[in-house]
Amino acid sequence: MSANWFRRRFLPGGPLPAPRPPRPRASPVPYRRPRFLRGSGSSPGTADASCRPDARPVRSPVRGRALPWNAGYAEIINAEKSEFNEDQAACGKLCIRRFEFGVEEDQEWLTLCPEKFLTGHYWALFDGHGGPAAAILAANTLHSCLRQQLEAVVEGMVATQPPMHLSGHCIRPSDPQFVEEKGIRAEDLVVGALESAFQECDEVIGRELEASGQVGGCTALVAVTLQGKLYVANAGDSRAILVRRDEVRPLSSEFTPETERQRIQQLAFLYPELLAGEFTRLEFPRRLKGDDLGQKVLFRDHHMSGWSYKCVEQSDLKYPLIHGQGRQARLLGTLAVSRGLGDHQLKVLDTNIQLKPFLLSVPQVTVLDMDQLEPQEEDVVVMATDGLWDVLSNEQVARLVRSFLPGNREDPHRFSELAQMLIHSTQGKDDSPTQEGQVSYDDVSVFVIPLHNQGQGRSSH
Amino acid sequence: MSANWFRRRFLPGGPLPAPRPPRPRASPVPYRRPRFLRGSGSSPGTADASCRPDARPVRSPVRGRALPWNAGYAEIINAEKSEFNEDQAACGKLCIRRFEFGVEEDQEWLTLCPEKFLTGHYWALFDGHGGPAAAILAANTLHSCLRQQLEAVVEGMVATQPPMHLSGHCIRPSDPQFVEEKGIRAEDLVVGALESAFQECDEVIGRELEASGQVGGCTALVAVTLQGKLYVANAGDSRAILVRRDEVRPLSSEFTPETERQRIQQLAFLYPELLAGEFTRLEFPRRLKGDDLGQKVLFRDHHMSGWSYKCVEQSDLKYPLIHGQGRQARLLGTLAVSRGLGDHQLKVLDTNIQLKPFLLSVPQVTVLDMDQLEPQEEDVVVMATDGLWDVLSNEQVARLVRSFLPGNREDPHRFSELAQMLIHSTQGKDDSPTQEGQVSYDDVSVFVIPLHNQGQGRSSH
Repeated sequence: MSANWFRRRFLPGGPLPAPRPPRPRASPVPYRRPRFLRGSGSSPGTADASCRPDARPVRSPVRGRALPWNAGYAEIINAEKSEFNEDQAACGKLCIRRFEFGVEEDQEWLTLCPEKFLTGHYWALFDGHGGPAAAILAANTLHSCLRQQLEAVVEGMVATQPPMHLSGHCIRPSDPQFVEEKGIRAEDLVVGALESAFQECDEVIGRELEASGQVGGCTALVAVTLQGKLYVANAGDSRAILVRRDEVRPLSSEFTPETERQRIQQLAFLYPELLAGEFTRLEFPRRLKGDDLGQKVLFRDHHMSGWSYKCVEQSDLKYPLIHGQGRQARLLGTLAVSRGLGDHQLKVLDTNIQLKPFLLSVPQVTVLDMDQLEPQEEDVVVMATDGLWDVLSNEQVARLVRSFLPGNREDPHRFSELAQMLIHSTQGKDDSPTQEGQVSYDDVSVFVIPLHNQGQGRSSH
Repeated sequence: MSANWFRRRFLPGGPLPAPRPPRPRASPVPYRRPRFLRGSGSSPGTADASCRPDARPVRSPVRGRALPWNAGYAEIINAEKSEFNEDQAACGKLCIRRFEFGVEEDQEWLTLCPEKFLTGHYWALFDGHGGPAAAILAANTLHSCLRQQLEAVVEGMVATQPPMHLSGHCIRPSDPQFVEEKGIRAEDLVVGALESAFQECDEVIGRELEASGQVGGCTALVAVTLQGKLYVANAGDSRAILVRRDEVRPLSSEFTPETERQRIQQLAFLYPELLAGEFTRLEFPRRLKGDDLGQKVLFRDHHMSGWSYKCVEQSDLKYPLIHGQGRQARLLGTLAVSRGLGDHQLKVLDTNIQLKPFLLSVPQVTVLDMDQLEPQEEDVVVMATDGLWDVLSNEQVARLVRSFLPGNREDPHRFSELAQMLIHSTQGKDDSPTQEGQVSYDDVSVFVIPLHNQGQGRSSH
């Protein structure tokens, strides 16, 4: 998210805020050496997977150090827009316990049957706003929520086909046929678990922030490998892409007030009281002023993907529900993303108008079958917060990946070096690959995940 | 839509309706000679474009007869599921008047400046349910609504870029820049006009049916060529595809209770009173029964694209908001489509539960740039109601098109013959190209629209 989104002042019904200067296209400042932060987050307790009772002890992804499992490598840079880093990250091994006994017996059974785990890997990036609190909570919590959700359905995941009843026996003989007809597969249970985990984590963050008197929210981008498949779940404006020798494939979509305009307008149409008479639901090319009254101007409403003209009335002069263009687009003049975690207390400045009803915590999930993909040694997934994608396109990142990896085949730290190089590329260095020397002033976090052999997590162990 | 959708009885809260026999996969009945109906609709006054004051005089698309403009050719077959054909069609030349004078002067100006028209072509298919009334009204009305909507924005359409203000002069010097930044193009005005026209037509149908004491609804699939572009607007389960030598491209998506599950569940989540306590919003693989109580069963809710398990409660035993699979899926046990026109009075049998709040009249619009496409002589668009697509896949239709057209290059009626042949193929003839000899028992309507030279409508004349 842009560096100063939260400092922007908005006075509903009052004059437009002074226009922000356009983001510089060429670097107007001298090169600033990035502060590379150790581990997967800059704040204590953020992302050291080894501290977590539900993760196998693995070292945190320190720069340049290969992890004992094929974990991928993170680099995080703090743009110093807040004292603590608003970008947070987490990664670790997912160990999904297959319950077959009561809780009492579990410990013993665990010791005796360590193979009764389904294992996978987990990577997550959280881009905070309004402070780092929500992002830190998410980095500490989401993997636990996910593990619990997966453990609740794991017996369905390991079955040939998820059974109608989790107990495994059919109530009616035709049950498997209904499941078959609906096309329900094991991967649908993982998708469902990710969706539920995001929502549960959002609730935890809401309670924790309220209890501690803190505020804020964050985006969440999660990648999980499990049973030969890669799942990418996204709520916010981070992005993951697959880079192969001949292919660049987006694995996520961004959720912003612009991309979710119709959903947001639709909610304001159904519940106009959410706008408290201070905003107009309609979209116009610019904010309307008094001299537009009575004119026919371009507009669109919740049901329209096209545009039309309407005669301007007094109520159209209110501040728009979604205002601004591209990276400057804001929901209720306040927020640059439309999905994420937290923000339970967020209100439009000096009003009682809440943002949360318009936000979704549920992610969109993409599934990649790694068995079908047959990943080669230099096939990677690049996950990054918007600080990277603001200045590098998917194709530019792919070019950097393809130019870097083949020349560094012997380097055991090459994926980490690649993540570092990608972040360097956003800092306006002379050798920057961005054609116009664009510079990111935002926090930037990058995971580079090599896909080769990731499918090996398929068997439980 | 399936032939007997409206006859199905549903008793909310009561026992499940007796399961319908599966649609026969192999033809169990002797070949029935299709009743080919003249014109573009079987009911008087339906589709004779020459009767309409707002269409240029063209002959209706009688089978085997080339039209004076490159209109395409329709075939319609009545499956005899109702006395009047529930499939209706319309086509004609669209003449969009460019207003520049007051109404008083218009007539004289028209005579003097006949070139002040923007012209295009219009094709539409309407698949009625609950009787033909809505489909007949739509065939008689929608093109007029569209013409009015287009005339309201035509000055924006013919400008280099739609102006912020329709009067053409800028209120503020930066206005063109805002339009540019939003990426608003002339085609967005046509998309907006199509969206508004569908909604307006829906309102007309609602008023007319109420005034005449009639009932019913219909799907609507419309193709329009204008200014070198092809627009396909769809609300329902009809389908249009583009068939070229090396390409088959869907130009529409179907809107059914299954494809719009999340939207429909979301509305029931926001307004549970719409279900009157008689239905459950949740989706299960099958309808639950008493012996499922307390079991953990597969389910999904409005926010989920994946599946999860839940413990069955008493309220889960209610009839599901969306029930059934594939062609059998029904909204509130009643309707097989989730978008369309009409149905204002439609209620669940023996209840006061209305269907209309769950239905959208707004279409999804696809735009095809014909200048970029450079259509070849045998590139066609095939538009058809679901009766065709129930038994023929896109690829099967494309194979039939490609095998038929090259051998009939000299036949002036070949597009009409092709439409006829496609309908024959759904009637279980011995030489049917459907691999399993599938037979359609539904009304079937087909337009075959040759694209070659359609771009010539670009200039006004």
